[in-house]
Amino acid sequence: MKREEFQRIESFMLKNMNDTVHDCLHVYRVLNYAIQIADTIEKIDTEVVIISALLHDIGRVDEIRNPSLCHAKIGSKKAKEFLINNGYSEGKANHVADCILTHRYKKNLKPQTMEAKIIFDADKLDLTGTVGTARAILFGGQIEEPLYLVGDDRLPTKGLPSEEASLFREYNRKLNKLFLKLNTEKAKEIGIEQQKTMDSYFMNLFKEVNRNYSNGKKLMDKILE
Amino acid sequence: MKREEFQRIESFMLKNMNDTVHDCLHVYRVLNYAIQIADTIEKIDTEVVIISALLHDIGRVDEIRNPSLCHAKIGSKKAKEFLINNGYSEGKANHVADCILTHRYKKNLKPQTMEAKIIFDADKLDLTGTVGTARAILFGGQIEEPLYLVGDDRLPTKGLPSEEASLFREYNRKLNKLFLKLNTEKAKEIGIEQQKTMDSYFMNLFKEVNRNYSNGKKLMDKILE
Repeated sequence: MKREEFQRIESFMLKNMNDTVHDCLHVYRVLNYAIQIADTIEKIDTEVVIISALLHDIGRVDEIRNPSLCHAKIGSKKAKEFLINNGYSEGKANHVADCILTHRYKKNLKPQTMEAKIIFDADKLDLTGTVGTARAILFGGQIEEPLYLVGDDRLPTKGLPSEEASLFREYNRKLNKLFLKLNTEKAKEIGIEQQKTMDSYFMNLFKEVNRNYSNGKKLMDKILE
Repeated sequence: MKREEFQRIESFMLKNMNDTVHDCLHVYRVLNYAIQIADTIEKIDTEVVIISALLHDIGRVDEIRNPSLCHAKIGSKKAKEFLINNGYSEGKANHVADCILTHRYKKNLKPQTMEAKIIFDADKLDLTGTVGTARAILFGGQIEEPLYLVGDDRLPTKGLPSEEASLFREYNRKLNKLFLKLNTEKAKEIGIEQQKTMDSYFMNLFKEVNRNYSNGKKLMDKILE
């Protein structure tokens, strides 16, 4: 792939990502993951992987403006149109469009080609590790979800899947097993490795919060008549 | 202190904290820290510590509505008024008001009494450890600050104090030495211990992000002509 070609697609991506800085950084991390996974698999259309990674979230601005839209669908359409207008073959444009369409986890829209599986995996890898931890915390903040809940005993609850929403519950329901959704061997290798740093953060968080509340409660129970 | 008295002050606090769930959880963590610190110091007015911890952030709603206001000043005034109206002595009300006024780090408004130092320390302790890490991430999200910056070499920068704002820089400038601001021995003990889990998160974050970009860059440099 020519550097100018990469830069042309990159510019188109940047023009479509003016919502938050976080989304742009995410795109480059996904590209970095995707190209690492692609490097371990034979007979891969690297061009499709690079273009799809760069453009996979260009529908997000539209979804933010109108939450009834699906950013994967819109992004897929926008990318195809851009590629056709820029002289790519219909085959190439359709392949990229498919990768973008299936990058989001949906039961009836699973990635079919190896390139699509790579994009799916690269996007999910960015939910693992310390970056995944930060993104989970940020998302919780956006939807005003608490870090944890406090029970009738005035101690933090465990965040069991059956409880009301909290970051603790999110970890127990989803974040502690993200790597199970990955398709490719290389992504699983990275995902399992990065799971350790996320687990370490959450174990420390559980300990810290529980220690704070149980020490405080013991003393307050002595003071309050 | 009577349990009903605690509950009356708690209710007043809850009525003044209806902005976000995060602030309420913070208040209880600060109370837990404050009471643990107070337990290690002789001749402490425990009542002042408990009331000040509960009410230290009741001015935050006002500051959110009007950012030119200082929540420590407003909260101090609101707390004094509430205490006088509820039969507390002027001495007690003034002492609580002082603790609230100086809980925020300001050069010309440093905590004077031991009770005020405890409230200051307890509030700062909630910026340490894994909870402090989550709060730094959330705050960065609110002000749309990126996790890190990317240099001209397309690799993440180190987040040096001289760089533009990012979470990386925030760690290097402030978060890696929060415990230095603490007054009491017990708070220092907890702060230094909790610094380890924050350091561990940031070290893992630096490593993960740098690995992602440098691996990706090496491969992209081979692909792009």
